[in-house]
Amino acid sequence: MKCLSEIKNLVTDVDGVLTDGGFYYDETGKVLKKFGPHDSDGFKIITSLGINCFAISADRRGFGITQRRLNDMGIPISLVSEKERFSWISENVGFDGTCFIGDGYHDVSSIEQATLGIAPVNAPDFVKSSADIVTKAQGGNGVIFEVALMLKERVK
Amino acid sequence: MKCLSEIKNLVTDVDGVLTDGGFYYDETGKVLKKFGPHDSDGFKIITSLGINCFAISADRRGFGITQRRLNDMGIPISLVSEKERFSWISENVGFDGTCFIGDGYHDVSSIEQATLGIAPVNAPDFVKSSADIVTKAQGGNGVIFEVALMLKERVK
Amino acid sequence: MKCLSEIKNLVTDVDGVLTDGGFYYDETGKVLKKFGPHDSDGFKIITSLGINCFAISADRRGFGITQRRLNDMGIPISLVSEKERFSWISENVGFDGTCFIGDGYHDVSSIEQATLGIAPVNAPDFVKSSADIVTKAQGGNGVIFEVALMLKERVK
Amino acid sequence: MKCLSEIKNLVTDVDGVLTDGGFYYDETGKVLKKFGPHDSDGFKIITSLGINCFAISADRRGFGITQRRLNDMGIPISLVSEKERFSWISENVGFDGTCFIGDGYHDVSSIEQATLGIAPVNAPDFVKSSADIVTKAQGGNGVIFEVALMLKERVK
Repeated sequence: MKCLSEIKNLVTDVDGVLTDGGFYYDETGKVLKKFGPHDSDGFKIITSLGINCFAISADRRGFGITQRRLNDMGIPISLVSEKERFSWISENVGFDGTCFIGDGYHDVSSIEQATLGIAPVNAPDFVKSSADIVTKAQGGNGVIFEVALMLKERVK
Repeated sequence: MKCLSEIKNLVTDVDGVLTDGGFYYDETGKVLKKFGPHDSDGFKIITSLGINCFAISADRRGFGITQRRLNDMGIPISLVSEKERFSWISENVGFDGTCFIGDGYHDVSSIEQATLGIAPVNAPDFVKSSADIVTKAQGGNGVIFEVALMLKERVK
Repeated sequence: MKCLSEIKNLVTDVDGVLTDGGFYYDETGKVLKKFGPHDSDGFKIITSLGINCFAISADRRGFGITQRRLNDMGIPISLVSEKERFSWISENVGFDGTCFIGDGYHDVSSIEQATLGIAPVNAPDFVKSSADIVTKAQGGNGVIFEVALMLKERVK
Repeated sequence: MKCLSEIKNLVTDVDGVLTDGGFYYDETGKVLKKFGPHDSDGFKIITSLGINCFAISADRRGFGITQRRLNDMGIPISLVSEKERFSWISENVGFDGTCFIGDGYHDVSSIEQATLGIAPVNAPDFVKSSADIVTKAQGGNGVIFEVALMLKERVK
């Protein structure tokens, strides 16, 4: 795939990509999210290729949780509402030379505009239809790691 | 399906529809439930079609948890015992023009009486047999979102 | 199956039958277990048939959690080590006319001795080989409910 | 398989083998891991065969959680970074006569060097390609128990 060698930036949604999209609630609200294996290794591989990584999330109530995980992995994380997603990427990273990974209703335009649009296999059908690549991995089960191996192959 | 254009109200059970039906216990009792992806988007789509959404739950011990999630999504939630479910819908919403989603032993009569009765694929066989539609999505993994896309199609 | 009409007692293991066998740990130890849907309805159905229900568990560290869930469902629960399991059933309930459900290494002799021995589909192969019936349901996803519908059929 | 009778030591990674590799986060950081069924029985079987068991983990932030579970099962656990894994095994246990179980990017050299290298079925493809045996069990769902039954067979 020709475009893999042009990728300079990676922007990823969090819920549904780094997690299965589930939210654990107790009586006080949203208190837990489950993050999966291998994605920390994946981000290290991608960064070592000279690609800048960014994470964005529209989940305001769970943002404290999301921040802790992304901070632990050393990836910058921004709170961006679903409607501002497209313009945020456009202004802060740009779509040219960018790989975008998303699974949601509001991700379709960014997936289509990015040089490389990726959706995890658990995304709704119409989201996957808009993507260049659908990962074999489920969200929260190695999506970033699978993308990392793909991006690494390009320089072999 | 003819009846999709007649739907004015949506009533949904919570456990087994918005969740996989699991209860997380610690030594003090029932403390967590896991809610899934896309259902928040689903309720927004359904509401935008002019359909009124209601959630009901028979889970008294976990009701504080359920309330937090439904409040976060802006959907009214009522505690209704399984035996009072049928009469509650009848008196508060009515079955005519109503879509009802349920997965349990006590949901069969409401599923059959509603204009559109829906069961998630994880429901027991005899519950699914009583439904007009069985979703592809598992409970806690996009049932409401799948129903939302169905209901949206009707006005296209 | 002839023996279904002879069942007077049901004894079930907890971890791996009412749960998927998983233990959630934090830095203080074992703090959570996840119990599944429909089993509460299942126990009500079985009890309504005049069958006495008992639960046993060998999990000492998680017993406080187990007690909370079984108490919520109104089922008596006893802490019985794996090696004492066979003799506990023999002395307290008896194997004759008893349905026993278990998934573990130490459950085989009780499954074989019981009038009706049942293993969930997630049990190891040699445990399932010892059972009269293997449920379609996974542990923690409706095993008791499936057994309840089986036992109810006998009196129809 | 000839080498099964030579095994004197078992060294296992934790995350992805004794768990599915998932990390549960709240706003304070990594707070929970889920450990699966039968592995406690598995370690008892392996130990009863005269094989020494060791666990290693590179997860510094979650090490307190990991310690609690391994302590409960009576298995010594060491914090070893991924890059030091190979040399740690070499110096502390030795690869000769050792069964090593791992699922990660950094486990390949140890899997290849060990007398018996094992990967769980959920490991990435290139990790599984390096292993002598790939378990049927998923990480966190009986890997150690499956290995225990294999090792026990050798002396039958």
